[in-house]
Amino acid sequence: MPGIQDPQLKQIALTAPFWSGYQALVRDVVVPYQWLALNDRVPDAEPSHAIANFRIAAGREQGDFRGMIFQDSDVAKWLEAVAYLLAQQRDPALERTADEVIDLVAAAQQPDGYLNTYFTLKAPAERWSNLAECHELYCAGHLFEAGVAYFQATGKRTLLEVCCRFADHIDAVFGTGPGKLQGYPGHPEVELALLRLYEATGEERYRALARYFIDQRGSRPHWYDIEHERRGGVSYWDNHGKDWMVRDKAYSQAHLPLVEQQHATGHAVRFVYLLAGAAHLARLDGDAAKREACLRLWHDMSARQMYVTGGIGAQGWGESFTSAYDLPNDSAYAESCAGVGLMMFAKRMLQMEGEAGYADAMERALYNVVLAGMSLDGKAFFYVNPLETVPRAMAANHAYDHVKPTRQRWFGCACCPPNIARLIASLGHYVYTSRAEALHVDLYVGGEAWFERDGVRFGLRQRTDYPWDGRVEIEVLAEQAFSTALALRLPDWCGQPRLQLNDEDVPLQVRKGYAWLEREWRPGDRLRLELPMPVRRIGAHPRLRQAAGKVALQRGPLVYCLEEADNGADLHQLALPADAALVPVAGDGVFAGMTLVEADGLRREPQGREALYRYDPPPARARSQRLRFVPYFAWANRGEGEMRVWLDAG
Amino acid sequence: MPGIQDPQLKQIALTAPFWSGYQALVRDVVVPYQWLALNDRVPDAEPSHAIANFRIAAGREQGDFRGMIFQDSDVAKWLEAVAYLLAQQRDPALERTADEVIDLVAAAQQPDGYLNTYFTLKAPAERWSNLAECHELYCAGHLFEAGVAYFQATGKRTLLEVCCRFADHIDAVFGTGPGKLQGYPGHPEVELALLRLYEATGEERYRALARYFIDQRGSRPHWYDIEHERRGGVSYWDNHGKDWMVRDKAYSQAHLPLVEQQHATGHAVRFVYLLAGAAHLARLDGDAAKREACLRLWHDMSARQMYVTGGIGAQGWGESFTSAYDLPNDSAYAESCAGVGLMMFAKRMLQMEGEAGYADAMERALYNVVLAGMSLDGKAFFYVNPLETVPRAMAANHAYDHVKPTRQRWFGCACCPPNIARLIASLGHYVYTSRAEALHVDLYVGGEAWFERDGVRFGLRQRTDYPWDGRVEIEVLAEQAFSTALALRLPDWCGQPRLQLNDEDVPLQVRKGYAWLEREWRPGDRLRLELPMPVRRIGAHPRLRQAAGKVALQRGPLVYCLEEADNGADLHQLALPADAALVPVAGDGVFAGMTLVEADGLRREPQGREALYRYDPPPARARSQRLRFVPYFAWANRGEGEMRVWLDAG
Repeated sequence: MPGIQDPQLKQIALTAPFWSGYQALVRDVVVPYQWLALNDRVPDAEPSHAIANFRIAAGREQGDFRGMIFQDSDVAKWLEAVAYLLAQQRDPALERTADEVIDLVAAAQQPDGYLNTYFTLKAPAERWSNLAECHELYCAGHLFEAGVAYFQATGKRTLLEVCCRFADHIDAVFGTGPGKLQGYPGHPEVELALLRLYEATGEERYRALARYFIDQRGSRPHWYDIEHERRGGVSYWDNHGKDWMVRDKAYSQAHLPLVEQQHATGHAVRFVYLLAGAAHLARLDGDAAKREACLRLWHDMSARQMYVTGGIGAQGWGESFTSAYDLPNDSAYAESCAGVGLMMFAKRMLQMEGEAGYADAMERALYNVVLAGMSLDGKAFFYVNPLETVPRAMAANHAYDHVKPTRQRWFGCACCPPNIARLIASLGHYVYTSRAEALHVDLYVGGEAWFERDGVRFGLRQRTDYPWDGRVEIEVLAEQAFSTALALRLPDWCGQPRLQLNDEDVPLQVRKGYAWLEREWRPGDRLRLELPMPVRRIGAHPRLRQAAGKVALQRGPLVYCLEEADNGADLHQLALPADAALVPVAGDGVFAGMTLVEADGLRREPQGREALYRYDPPPARARSQRLRFVPYFAWANRGEGEMRVWLDAG
Repeated sequence: MPGIQDPQLKQIALTAPFWSGYQALVRDVVVPYQWLALNDRVPDAEPSHAIANFRIAAGREQGDFRGMIFQDSDVAKWLEAVAYLLAQQRDPALERTADEVIDLVAAAQQPDGYLNTYFTLKAPAERWSNLAECHELYCAGHLFEAGVAYFQATGKRTLLEVCCRFADHIDAVFGTGPGKLQGYPGHPEVELALLRLYEATGEERYRALARYFIDQRGSRPHWYDIEHERRGGVSYWDNHGKDWMVRDKAYSQAHLPLVEQQHATGHAVRFVYLLAGAAHLARLDGDAAKREACLRLWHDMSARQMYVTGGIGAQGWGESFTSAYDLPNDSAYAESCAGVGLMMFAKRMLQMEGEAGYADAMERALYNVVLAGMSLDGKAFFYVNPLETVPRAMAANHAYDHVKPTRQRWFGCACCPPNIARLIASLGHYVYTSRAEALHVDLYVGGEAWFERDGVRFGLRQRTDYPWDGRVEIEVLAEQAFSTALALRLPDWCGQPRLQLNDEDVPLQVRKGYAWLEREWRPGDRLRLELPMPVRRIGAHPRLRQAAGKVALQRGPLVYCLEEADNGADLHQLALPADAALVPVAGDGVFAGMTLVEADGLRREPQGREALYRYDPPPARARSQRLRFVPYFAWANRGEGEMRVWLDAG
C-alpha cells in the first residue's frame, strides 16, 4: 500500500460490497483504461506518451520524450496499482503485461543505476541540476513504491532490484559528504518511498537517505538557489513568471527546516507527502522533534485548513493551502491527490500515535474527496473537488478555470487518476494498524485479514454494509486461544456506539477514541459493533466565513450535497430549517444501493424578478420544498448542473 | 468634460461644499502629485517616465522609452484634468506648466502628424501594425480629449491643432478606401474622442472616422488576425499565453459587430468607452440600429452585471465582465476607470434618451465606485473596488492578488488616478443635459450654470448639501422672462419627492423619471425640491447568489459598508434584523461632516471555538451589537481591516 509496511499484517482481502465493487472497477475499468492511456490508445484524450518514453529510453524505439517532466511517475503508479490487484487475485495476463513494463523500465535504467526518461532522452548532462523544478526524485519515489508493492504482491525481485540500484545511485550522489550534492527534491515523495524500500529490504542506507532528505530540507543557503545559480538562472517552467517554483520556497515546504515549520503551507500534495515520510521516520527513529512537528502541522492542516470533505489546498494558485479559516467553496482546489496524500499522512500518524482522530480524518478524506475524484463508472476523474458549482458562472468567470463542472476522461498532468486507482486497490492496508499495545481497527470494511503478533497467527473477518449501515461484525479466526488487545475505532460521527461480544453487551473502555478489548480471544469469538448513523448536521468554526450561517449534512462517514438535478437551479435559495427531520431514503438510478437523504426545506425567493437591486425588499417568499441530498462522492454523475455542500441553516 | 460637448452649456462653477472640496483636492493635491509622478519625482512610487518619454521623443533628452505601451495617455489625462481646473479658476502657474507640456507634445509630433512616443522611440517601423494590443489609437483618443478640453478652457489652439494634424493622419491611414488599413483599436477611446473633436471643430471627417471605427469593429475576417499574420505571429504581450489579446476577440468587444452584440462582455473599460462613443454617434446620426444596441447592452450591463456600488467588471482576469448574476464580492474587480467610463456612457444615453434611469446609474457609480477610488486626502487610489475584504485571507490566497486592502500611492499601470482626477474636475458637465424638449437636471450639485436655449441666455443656481441632505434649491437667473421646460430628476432612491415653486407646492408631472416643469420662467423664480433621504435597505435579484439572504444599506445616493474599525473583526457574523431602525448619525474624525448610519444588529457567533467542524451545532449565540456603517466611498481611510457591503438580513 502507498508507503505502508506492516510486517504483522500478512494478508488481506476485501469482501464488502461497497469496496469490492470499487476494487472490481479499478481492476476491470480503471487500470485497463489507464493502460490504454499510457499507450496513447484513447482516442479523445491528450496523449500520455509515458510508455513510449520508456521504449525510446530503452532503445527499442526511435523518438523524442514527450509529456510532463514527471511522466514516468504515471507508469510507476500504474504498476503499483497493478501490484495491489495482483496481491488480491492472480491475473496471469495482467501480470504478464506488468512484467513486460518492468522489463522495459529495467532496460531504460542507465549503467550507473540512474533512471528517468526525461533526462536520459532530453538532457543527460543536466541530471540532478534542477531538483526544485524537475521531479527526478519524485519519479524515483513512485518507482520505489511500485517496486516494493510488486515484490510484496508477486515475490518477483526484478523491479525491486532496479529500485535498489537506483536508490544506491541516489545515495552515492546526495548527502553532506565531500563531493556530494546537498540537495533535496522540489516535490517530496522519495522520503516515504525510501522508507518503504528500507522496510522491504532492511537496508539501513535507505532509511538514512530518507532522513538526510528530510533534515536537509529548508537549510540555508537554499539549495534551490545554489543550483539555480549553477544553472545560470535557467528555469524549467515558463508560467507564472519563470522561476517562481525556485523563489517560492514555501510552495515546496522548503522555506524552513521541517521542525521549525508552524503552518501547513504551499502545495498541498507536497505537504502531505513530505509529512507522511516525516511521520514514518519520526516513529522509526523515535525522533521527538520530528514528532512534534508532525503533530503541530497535522493540527494546523486538519483544524484550520481542511474542507468538511477532507479536501485540502484551498486555492488553485500553486494548488496550495491558503490560511486559517479561509476555505472558499466554489473556487476550492482540494485536489484528489491531496486527499490520497492526507490518507498516507494520517496512516503514519495512526502508526505513531494510535489516536482515532487521525482515522476520522483519513476516513473523511477517503469517503468524500478521494472517492469523489472518480465517476461511478470509473471512467472519468476530478482533479479539483469544489464544494459548490454553478456551471453558468464557471463558464464565464476565470476564477473557476481550474474547476470543472463534470469529471474529465484523462488529464495532461495525469497524477490523480492513477493515484486514486492505487489508493482503492491498496485500501485493505488502511483498515488495520498493528501497534505494540493493540491491534487497531481503523476502518470498517468487510473482508478477512491475517496477522501475526507475538508469534501467534490469527485472523479477523469483518462483515459490514458500511458506509450505508453501521453494524460491524468481527469474527476471530484462529486455531487456538491467544491474548492481545483489540482497539475498535469509535468514529467521531457516531454519538452512541454499542458493542457486543458473543451476543453480550460489553461496557465500552475508551482509549484515544477506540473501544479497547484486552483479553484472551478464542477461535470463533464474535464482536458486534453498532454504530448508529443518523443524518447529522455539521456546523463550522466561527471564523470560517464561507460556511457562516450554513450547515452541511453527514451520515456515517459520508458528507452529502444538493444537486440541481434533484432540487432545481439556484441552490443558494435553499435553506434547511433547524427542526427539519433528515430522512434516509433508498437511492435509485445511478444511486441504486446508496442511501440518500431527504428533508423538508425551504426555497427563499426574493420577490421581484427583474430588477438587479430593489429598495426596501419585502421578506423573501419562503415556500417549502422537499430537498434531496446525495452523497458528495457521487455528485456529477448525471451531467452538468449546480452542486452545493453547505446550505443556509433555516 | 470627458467626451461631452454641450454647446448650450456656457459656463458652470460648483460651490457645493462636498464637490468643491473634492475639486480643491484635485487641484491642490492630486494634480500636483500626479505631476510629480509623471516626472518621476515621487520617491516611493514606481517611476512613470511619461514626461521623459516625450522629452526624448522631442529630441530634448537622450534615453529610451520606458513604461507601459500606453504611458502617453497619462500625460493626456493629466492635461485634460488641468484643463477642467483652469476652466473654473485661472491659475497662471499651472497653465504655464501645461503650456510647456503641450509644447513638448507638439515637439514630439512627427512631420506626418503621427504622435506616440513608444513607437517613435522604440519601433518606428511598426506603427499601426498591432492595433489589437498596442494602444496607439487609445493614446490618440486621450490626447484628443485633452486638446478639446484645453481649447475650451483656455481658448489656446496649440494642442487642438496637434490633435487635428494627428486625426488627419489617422484619417489618411484608416478606412475602407484603397491602400488604407481596415483596422480598429484594441482599446476603444478614439471613437468618443473623435466625436468631441468633431463637435469642437465642426470637421465632418472626424465624425465619419469615428463611425468607421465603430462600424468596422468585429467584421470578418478579423483585422486582429490579419495584422497578427502580417506581423508573423509576433505578439507584444507576454502574459497569459502570448497572444491572448489577439485571440480573445470578446475581450476587446470585437467578436461581433456592435449592432449584433447581445451581452456586456470582455474588458469593462473597453466596453463602456466603446459604448459611450457608439451612443454619441447613434444620437448624432439618428442611427436606430446603434441606438438599439446601446439600449440592449446598457440593460445587460446595468440590470445583470453591475455591483450595487455601480462597479462593473466582476473578475480580475481581463478586468472583465463575467455573466448575468455573477458578482463575487471579495474577488470583484470593479475598476475605478470602469466607473468613470460607465458615467461617460450614461451621460450619452441621457443625451439620447432623457431617461432618469441612466442618471440613477451614473450617480450610483459616481458617489460609490468612482469616489471610492481615491482616499479622502487625495493621495492614494484603488484600481480595484471590492465589496468585501478580509485582509488576513487576502495575504495568503492568490485569488485576491488584484485586490488591495488599502489604497496605493500610484500604479505602474496608472490609468485610474488621472481618470478619477479628470472626472472630478469635469463633474460640472454631468449635472445638466440640454435636450430639445427640456433642460434636464441630472445631478444635484451646488453651483451656478449658464445656458443658451432658443437664443435666450439664463442661469440656474443650485444650492444643496447633497449627498448628505436632499433639499435642493434652484434659483432662476435671467434678465427677462423666458419659456423652457425644466426636468428635475427624481432619483430612484427617493420614495416621496416634493416640489415647491416660489414656496407653493407643485403637483409632480413625472416624465421618464423627471419632474417636468414647462412654463414661462421669470428672473428670481425659486424651485425647492425635497428629496427625503431615509436610510434604505437594498435587496438583490433572486439569482444573485453572492447577495442571497443579504441586505445592503443606502442613504441618498450613498451605499454604506461595515468596517472592522467600528464593528470588530469577522464581519460575516453580523446581521441586520428586518425591524432594526437605521439611524443617521454625524461622523467624526475622518468622517467629520459625513452622515454615518447606526443600527441595532446581531453578532451570531457559533458556539465552540476550537473545532473546525462540529456535529449537531447548537444555534448560534446571537448577541446584540450596535452596528456602525460608513459611506462606501470613504472606506479604508483608517488603515487595514475587514470591510463588507452586503450583510446577513436578520
